[in-house]
Amino acid sequence: MKAKELAQILGCQLLGNENVEINSISEIQNAEEGDLTFLTNPKYKKYLEKTKASAIIVEKPIKGLEITQLICEEPYVAFAKALSIFYPEDLPSPHISPKATISASAKVGNNCYIGDNVVIEENAVIGDNVILFPGVYIGKNSKVGDNSVIFPNVVIYHNVKIGNWVRIHAGSVVGSDGFGYAFSKKEMKVFKVPQTGGVVIEDFVEIGANTTIDRGTIGDTVIGEGTKIDNLVQIGHNVKIGKYCFIVSQVGISGSTKIGDFVTLAGKVGVAGHIEIASNVTVGAKSGVTKSIKEPGVYAGFPVKPYREWRKIQALVDRLPEIYEKIKRFLGNF
Amino acid sequence: MKAKELAQILGCQLLGNENVEINSISEIQNAEEGDLTFLTNPKYKKYLEKTKASAIIVEKPIKGLEITQLICEEPYVAFAKALSIFYPEDLPSPHISPKATISASAKVGNNCYIGDNVVIEENAVIGDNVILFPGVYIGKNSKVGDNSVIFPNVVIYHNVKIGNWVRIHAGSVVGSDGFGYAFSKKEMKVFKVPQTGGVVIEDFVEIGANTTIDRGTIGDTVIGEGTKIDNLVQIGHNVKIGKYCFIVSQVGISGSTKIGDFVTLAGKVGVAGHIEIASNVTVGAKSGVTKSIKEPGVYAGFPVKPYREWRKIQALVDRLPEIYEKIKRFLGNF
Amino acid sequence: MKAKELAQILGCQLLGNENVEINSISEIQNAEEGDLTFLTNPKYKKYLEKTKASAIIVEKPIKGLEITQLICEEPYVAFAKALSIFYPEDLPSPHISPKATISASAKVGNNCYIGDNVVIEENAVIGDNVILFPGVYIGKNSKVGDNSVIFPNVVIYHNVKIGNWVRIHAGSVVGSDGFGYAFSKKEMKVFKVPQTGGVVIEDFVEIGANTTIDRGTIGDTVIGEGTKIDNLVQIGHNVKIGKYCFIVSQVGISGSTKIGDFVTLAGKVGVAGHIEIASNVTVGAKSGVTKSIKEPGVYAGFPVKPYREWRKIQALVDRLPEIYEKIKRFLGNF
Repeated sequence: MKAKELAQILGCQLLGNENVEINSISEIQNAEEGDLTFLTNPKYKKYLEKTKASAIIVEKPIKGLEITQLICEEPYVAFAKALSIFYPEDLPSPHISPKATISASAKVGNNCYIGDNVVIEENAVIGDNVILFPGVYIGKNSKVGDNSVIFPNVVIYHNVKIGNWVRIHAGSVVGSDGFGYAFSKKEMKVFKVPQTGGVVIEDFVEIGANTTIDRGTIGDTVIGEGTKIDNLVQIGHNVKIGKYCFIVSQVGISGSTKIGDFVTLAGKVGVAGHIEIASNVTVGAKSGVTKSIKEPGVYAGFPVKPYREWRKIQALVDRLPEIYEKIKRFLGNF
Repeated sequence: MKAKELAQILGCQLLGNENVEINSISEIQNAEEGDLTFLTNPKYKKYLEKTKASAIIVEKPIKGLEITQLICEEPYVAFAKALSIFYPEDLPSPHISPKATISASAKVGNNCYIGDNVVIEENAVIGDNVILFPGVYIGKNSKVGDNSVIFPNVVIYHNVKIGNWVRIHAGSVVGSDGFGYAFSKKEMKVFKVPQTGGVVIEDFVEIGANTTIDRGTIGDTVIGEGTKIDNLVQIGHNVKIGKYCFIVSQVGISGSTKIGDFVTLAGKVGVAGHIEIASNVTVGAKSGVTKSIKEPGVYAGFPVKPYREWRKIQALVDRLPEIYEKIKRFLGNF
Repeated sequence: MKAKELAQILGCQLLGNENVEINSISEIQNAEEGDLTFLTNPKYKKYLEKTKASAIIVEKPIKGLEITQLICEEPYVAFAKALSIFYPEDLPSPHISPKATISASAKVGNNCYIGDNVVIEENAVIGDNVILFPGVYIGKNSKVGDNSVIFPNVVIYHNVKIGNWVRIHAGSVVGSDGFGYAFSKKEMKVFKVPQTGGVVIEDFVEIGANTTIDRGTIGDTVIGEGTKIDNLVQIGHNVKIGKYCFIVSQVGISGSTKIGDFVTLAGKVGVAGHIEIASNVTVGAKSGVTKSIKEPGVYAGFPVKPYREWRKIQALVDRLPEIYEKIKRFLGNF
């Protein structure tokens, strides 16, 4: 594809040789002739001069750069689009494996791929154009919406409703029992709290690998439209996550917590149960949210606080040895 | 079921209309006519006035409440019991799938459900009334006790002894190799330490989804009777956990550590190897236990300390900017 | 086996009865007559007097000990070797299960064990002496090198290259999509960044259970020769890990980070994206690495700092209540 064709598709302006041929996409440090590359993270600017790429997607024109520039407001978006043009995903064609088990009462839509050793239990409903990779388990009465892709060995328990265009990566579990027990001092016995609710995964959600989403105790656990969940994330029973959130790897969210829309929880964040996080909140990596967050903004620390406050505290903590020496000089040893 | 019948079964006192009909159970904020609800967490008191439930389980009589009250000392226990009455678990009936592989030397008890694609290796022993969901793997010489339920795609390695009434949720792995390597400076080579022990899971244990429990190097890793383990928990080789512990999601326990009875480790707690935690200890979320805890009590922080001490320290850390300003006013800038 | 034979094989010097018979290996606290035991962790010295073992591997001769001593510079290495002599791993013999699905275009080498319900997709290449336990999935164009062992229900996506003598424990996922999305403010839409790269796992790597390793966005995620990864670890897209690293349980490494050789990341460490960690670095448990580490050494804390510095700060944090009281005595209440 010529640079000018690509620029048009991506909605970019073009600077330099518009006829240069683009065959593939590479990282700036590894690019070869014929490659398109991109610059979105300033850390990689140092590779600009040496790159052998034939063209680059950038936000603003870069002076003195010899290679063709595709300039646009949102270069990372253009890069994502370019990748999907050059490397369309290679998913299996429609086919029902004779090694799959599909209950007589289950329904499977048109143009589905149902892989080997898939098990679809009673009254489950699979939409059109669905891909269930080998080893996937779909429990009773569960539903997978149109165009969804479930990767190998994913387990969907019973009464789980999965929307359209959902992707769930290998090994994830949706609908396992929440962690609920009632300890009776009178009887000196632990009673399991039956987990009788379900899970709702709305449209356009993507879930990473080996993530776990528990079913509700009563009522549902809900993952809102367009929310993206990374690998090894724990979502407790009856959690409600809003729309277009980003939940990064190894986050844990305890039971019955409600999260608004456009919330980002960075890696390893822990969130307590029965609290609320407002929309448009971002929580920094490794933070612990123990109380509700009512205002949009950026937060960090444990317990979580506004990011700037946390930075201030953190800076003072790191200076403690120096501050302590100074105080001792004034006040004497202690 | 009439409220009075239910009250009798649950051992509750009754206040209000004893003939009101109960058909299902709901959360207080979503309840409709015919629903039973409950109040155990004071955060939900605000819904009391507006709830449309027909009856509520409470600890103490609430004045002015119009709906029927079921009053008992342990309302959460009564709620758990009520759930199991209204929503008995729908588990598969006894059946051996022709798609399962059962070694000729393995034994399977009476009334078992063995799902599709289950693999039971040589000399494994499955008790009576056991449910092995599709895709479960049971290694050589392993044992699953009576009435246990193993959810889809769980992997039990060889020489693992699982007791009676155990539940293991989807994707969990029991008996993987512990993380043991010996680095030889002399030979400049890493040797794997063979993991030759097993795992013992005692009766009434429940294990969440995608949790991992490593086998012992020599001797066994042991999970004591009645202990409940949440999702995505890591239990290292040769760990011994006592009876009736609660190990919350994303906890990690390093090798050879011994944990007493009635211990609670809240979410994301990390525990170092080769240490001991006494019985009746509770450790707060995200804490790190680096030394043995010898006294019962509540602990938190990293390194862990008595909870009150940690709270005091934590409060001062959060006040550091203010304290620092004050000190500077007295002692001058530094 | 007689102690003298064993000492010779292990390269140990012998003190005491060289003809004592060794039948098995036990932990020092549980050892019986006929057992070999070992002492490497000083915490277990207290069991020395009471142990019923017939022989012990130690670093230096212990005076007054009645049992036979096998003395060597690296007792833990000798212990690892002894275990592999007494307890050789019991792996399945070569056999291709008729219940496996092997694409016509895939190649399987000599002497392989391919278990029930294994799926090997198009153009995949399996080397010689490979063991694929039941339920393993190998995606298109992926490769598993000679002598590698893949435990049950592991999922290897497409375009993953696994070297020789690699071991991957149950439930792990290699090649899932990295967590990459581009949010367009202009279009108010989230675009998935296609994950078009692959994963390279070099020779002698061992990966624990339920660990996740994402494929590269463009280019590969790489795990270097001899590196050992524990359970429930998250490795982001395009991460490069060098040779002979130890990545302990529940560590998370964000995208595009580069880690040198001989690096140890202790339990629950988090590493930010797009940074570098030099060779010969050790990072303490629960630390957070937010910037590149350029010098070898031991680090801890969040943000990470040299270990001694962190200890100093940590000690002062723990003394804050006391220091605060002292300051108030001088400066008055505030």
